[in-house]
Amino acid sequence: MSVPPRYRAKSRVDVSGEESRAKAVAVATELFALTGFKGTSVAAVAARTGLSQSGLLHHFPSKAALLTAVLEERDRQDGDFLAGSAGPPLGWAAFDALAALVARNSTRPHLVGLFVRLAAEATEPAHPAHTWVREHYSGLQRWLGDAVRSGQERGEIAADAPVGSIVRTTIAVIDGLQQQWLLQPDEVSMTAEFEAFAGTLRARWAR
Amino acid sequence: MSVPPRYRAKSRVDVSGEESRAKAVAVATELFALTGFKGTSVAAVAARTGLSQSGLLHHFPSKAALLTAVLEERDRQDGDFLAGSAGPPLGWAAFDALAALVARNSTRPHLVGLFVRLAAEATEPAHPAHTWVREHYSGLQRWLGDAVRSGQERGEIAADAPVGSIVRTTIAVIDGLQQQWLLQPDEVSMTAEFEAFAGTLRARWAR
Repeated sequence: MSVPPRYRAKSRVDVSGEESRAKAVAVATELFALTGFKGTSVAAVAARTGLSQSGLLHHFPSKAALLTAVLEERDRQDGDFLAGSAGPPLGWAAFDALAALVARNSTRPHLVGLFVRLAAEATEPAHPAHTWVREHYSGLQRWLGDAVRSGQERGEIAADAPVGSIVRTTIAVIDGLQQQWLLQPDEVSMTAEFEAFAGTLRARWAR
Repeated sequence: MSVPPRYRAKSRVDVSGEESRAKAVAVATELFALTGFKGTSVAAVAARTGLSQSGLLHHFPSKAALLTAVLEERDRQDGDFLAGSAGPPLGWAAFDALAALVARNSTRPHLVGLFVRLAAEATEPAHPAHTWVREHYSGLQRWLGDAVRSGQERGEIAADAPVGSIVRTTIAVIDGLQQQWLLQPDEVSMTAEFEAFAGTLRARWAR
């Protein structure tokens, strides 16, 4: 089947732009994780991506925009990880999925450090990643809240378990453990602590 | 009894220096909390303290040093608050003291924001507040660990309760709730969530 040339041309341009964009995000993730946000220049990201600096700035108007894209990509990947191949995990299985995510994070200190520092900075409403950080938390709360409510419907979590509290505290434990782990990597096992916490929740609210 | 003049003179100088220092810390706390670390100039702190800028820099060689002093003072005040008038609270009483501290923090969003952002930034080893943040966490862990072990000795906490896990997770919950509360102040009650968490711990480990 023949396709009008201008559509093919347009399609090639889009694909190439999308590829450059994705490559820049991958390069920036690696550099931010290795040398930090402040220690990474837009020029270095452009060079490794194979773009001119103005070419990179065409996709991302600022280093902050690049960082937001890195974090959105991280959320997307974590989202895929949490979603599971057979649909989102329900009930206690969601806590197993979170434990697996925490275990994966334990192998990525630079990325965890980047996330912890950025999420804290971005609590300021004027910060360029403020919208991202708000959506990150509300998205995670929604995902875990849905899982806990499904667990209640399936009868594996007590009907009177306080969903909102369980959700907020579980996310708080993950965040707070990251902070301590970054400071005391040899003393804190995020995975063991998170599993112990999930075990306590289960002992209290499993039906 | 007569005292050699040079010692008296030295003592007067020290007291006055100590007063200026304490006043600068109080002023900086107020300004950092109101306008943020970046939005506060050394000149503004000096002016409100009644010192020249070089006079302030004599006590604190940089704005970062001033910030570290602010946070050390916050830790000292929180330490006094947690210590209680009748000695450090033991066993579950330590969790009640923490709940009261969380309730007090709920009235100080600017100071909580400052702490959250700085504690995250300072996870980087080169950060000027890195030593402070490490000592902050190890001090809090020691205080709560001692309280839980006392609770075990007094027979109010199960002898097989995992002290390290309880300590780290409790601190993680406090930190993580601050992060969510800064983003969603109307949706998150740090005090209610912390009390629910402490209730879950108690249900699991009280004897």
